[in-house]
Amino acid sequence: MALIHDKLEQVLPKYHENVKNFGKTHGEAVIGQITVGAVLGGQRGMLSLLCDTSLVPADKGLIIRGIPLEQLCDKLPEEVFWLLLTGELPSKAELADLQKDLEARRAIPDNVWKTLDSLPKDTHPMAAFSILIMALERESVFRKRYDEGMKKDDYWHAMLEDSLNLVARVPDLAAAIYRWRYDLGPRIAPKPGLDWAANYAYMMGIPDPDGGFTRLMRLYMTLHTDHEGGNVSAHTSHCVASALSDPYYSVAAGLNGLAGPLHGLANQEVLQWLLDVLEKFGGNPSDAELDKFAHDTLTSGRVIPGYGHAVLRVVDPRFIAFLNFGKKECPNAPVFKLAEQVFNVVPEILKGIQKIKDPWPNVDSISGPRLYHYGVTQTRYYTVLFGVSRAMGLVAQMVMSRAWNEPIERPKSITLDGLKKAAGA
Amino acid sequence: MALIHDKLEQVLPKYHENVKNFGKTHGEAVIGQITVGAVLGGQRGMLSLLCDTSLVPADKGLIIRGIPLEQLCDKLPEEVFWLLLTGELPSKAELADLQKDLEARRAIPDNVWKTLDSLPKDTHPMAAFSILIMALERESVFRKRYDEGMKKDDYWHAMLEDSLNLVARVPDLAAAIYRWRYDLGPRIAPKPGLDWAANYAYMMGIPDPDGGFTRLMRLYMTLHTDHEGGNVSAHTSHCVASALSDPYYSVAAGLNGLAGPLHGLANQEVLQWLLDVLEKFGGNPSDAELDKFAHDTLTSGRVIPGYGHAVLRVVDPRFIAFLNFGKKECPNAPVFKLAEQVFNVVPEILKGIQKIKDPWPNVDSISGPRLYHYGVTQTRYYTVLFGVSRAMGLVAQMVMSRAWNEPIERPKSITLDGLKKAAGA
Repeated sequence: MALIHDKLEQVLPKYHENVKNFGKTHGEAVIGQITVGAVLGGQRGMLSLLCDTSLVPADKGLIIRGIPLEQLCDKLPEEVFWLLLTGELPSKAELADLQKDLEARRAIPDNVWKTLDSLPKDTHPMAAFSILIMALERESVFRKRYDEGMKKDDYWHAMLEDSLNLVARVPDLAAAIYRWRYDLGPRIAPKPGLDWAANYAYMMGIPDPDGGFTRLMRLYMTLHTDHEGGNVSAHTSHCVASALSDPYYSVAAGLNGLAGPLHGLANQEVLQWLLDVLEKFGGNPSDAELDKFAHDTLTSGRVIPGYGHAVLRVVDPRFIAFLNFGKKECPNAPVFKLAEQVFNVVPEILKGIQKIKDPWPNVDSISGPRLYHYGVTQTRYYTVLFGVSRAMGLVAQMVMSRAWNEPIERPKSITLDGLKKAAGA
Repeated sequence: MALIHDKLEQVLPKYHENVKNFGKTHGEAVIGQITVGAVLGGQRGMLSLLCDTSLVPADKGLIIRGIPLEQLCDKLPEEVFWLLLTGELPSKAELADLQKDLEARRAIPDNVWKTLDSLPKDTHPMAAFSILIMALERESVFRKRYDEGMKKDDYWHAMLEDSLNLVARVPDLAAAIYRWRYDLGPRIAPKPGLDWAANYAYMMGIPDPDGGFTRLMRLYMTLHTDHEGGNVSAHTSHCVASALSDPYYSVAAGLNGLAGPLHGLANQEVLQWLLDVLEKFGGNPSDAELDKFAHDTLTSGRVIPGYGHAVLRVVDPRFIAFLNFGKKECPNAPVFKLAEQVFNVVPEILKGIQKIKDPWPNVDSISGPRLYHYGVTQTRYYTVLFGVSRAMGLVAQMVMSRAWNEPIERPKSITLDGLKKAAGA
């Protein structure tokens, strides 16, 4: 048995006890109120989910298991995955063991490639990604063991099996989709000994003479693993898994949410906007030109994609990580330079416009330009990269939920008339 | 343009105004509290979603647009679909127009069948169903128009287009999966002029000399369309659609939740349990034998699948509808008789056991026996039937949400330590 399993054997039963005891002693404690505005406002900010993998304070940005993201930028995604699951960064031996375990779980059954070949080439890469994950569902250990009458206390073990298999395989699925979708030639087999993100980069087949793309992919995968429990992909996965659907069903459902333009698909939109600006100005505009253009855009009622984050009231630390990466690795790439210019110009304009509580960019407004620079020019593919990384957080959350036997998610809905009555209107 | 569209043009802008005005005047009104117990209890009963298609009062069961389900059992599912969307039952002309419209939208592109053929035969029918819906995603009108810069007020129109296409097509997908999965011969083409559920029954290819199976399918499809907004499939679809993912992504995600053993997959489990009992007793047990067996099962810590509904405190009206159907159409079928016996015996035992707040059966404990009697003996397929019907409710909820521009669903999660702090622990 792999070390990750042993470690979780130590950690998760204690976590279960801890949650259970707290629920017993403080179940009645009131921690917030529900307003009409929250029900009609997508429950924005309404405290309603337990999630211990990470937390996103509005004034700080992502904190994974108590460690601010800034301190994790030089970690491999596998290290962050271990951290998400266990609460601690892995030792060298633990990391090596996890990498070996993931490598051993990597083989994709042939039927999955047959399904990929059956899809028309104009299938959206995110739709293809969701389909291929579902084509793996028949391998689910959780479903098989559930059908055999598995005990509740064993749920997380079976969930972990599926989760490790899924995390091991998503880069291969995603790289295959990339090469298939854009006619880049046959699939590239994984290379033994490469780390998880480097292998993904390798299988995409992007020329990478100085290793810059591989470094970018490690960073990208490390930054997108998790973003607490309330975002659409995490919440969707959580909700599906709470009915004891296995991780294939749950992750595919979460990715279907990530495919939404207001969620992960934003990075496709942001990059297109930047490219349009470069084309319009025949290269990088001056700061003054950009200022005028952005101002005209905003006052005419249109938006600047990627600006105005839903949750954060500070610059997203993931944005800063990409900005620093670009400054170091490719400061003169036009699309990166433009993203930097926009960052210097747009928040000031937004601050001046009423109702914009948060003028800061989200991570999408800088991740796309980085990918584009290295030759991943197919913007519709960007959300798949996001999804490969996010799979780690989704499954980590699920394993923890099963470990404390979280019940099915079943809030109550109400009609408009009922809501009016409840509000005394 | 079809009449359903004209009708919604009259209805939905008013609904939008109504929600918006109420939000403005009463946004701050407090309608409930959030407790530690709710956060740790899957938000059970926590009022947090607006849903006007239907309501499930715990003491009444399903009410669709103000009409108790009991009064809808003789309606066609298309009529309930119109009711879900518009708030009124259709006139004869409106029903005929909707049926014609759905018939015109029915053709499945060949690529979908190619994808079905690519799947191994041991793929779970629900996984196959989710995959085929995703294989239709490239047809999304919503995504195409969104990419072209569609205005917010047009969202529901595009959503409706996709929704009608999807509802028109799910029976064909589901019937094809049935015949493919169980080697029942080639697909059966739909028959022009049949109503939606009758066509589904026809395409499954079940021999139906006296029309009983067709009547059952109409009833089954009518009973399962919707069950307010908080159940896992509806909530999942809602959450995914709130990121503006199109209905193909959203419905597939919802069905991935329905595939969970604690949700729709329950009907597969219930039937298997009943068959096991019949086998154990070599036919129907006496009431006394069943009483003893059920008591032994429950006191040994096992469950009787389908008993102890999560939400209802009365007998599910859908259960009663199936019970009445069986009493009329096939009172002597062993598996139906057993389901009726269980209903007469088990709630009394459950009442006597501590902690069972609700001893009543859910609809799954009777729908399976009905299907089995007519020859749909493949229990793993049952959740697909549920999903075909539920697609109507899922898309109706989505169209309404887009009509009032419901924001992205983004509640806040918290860590266990944070929750303790919030509770003053």
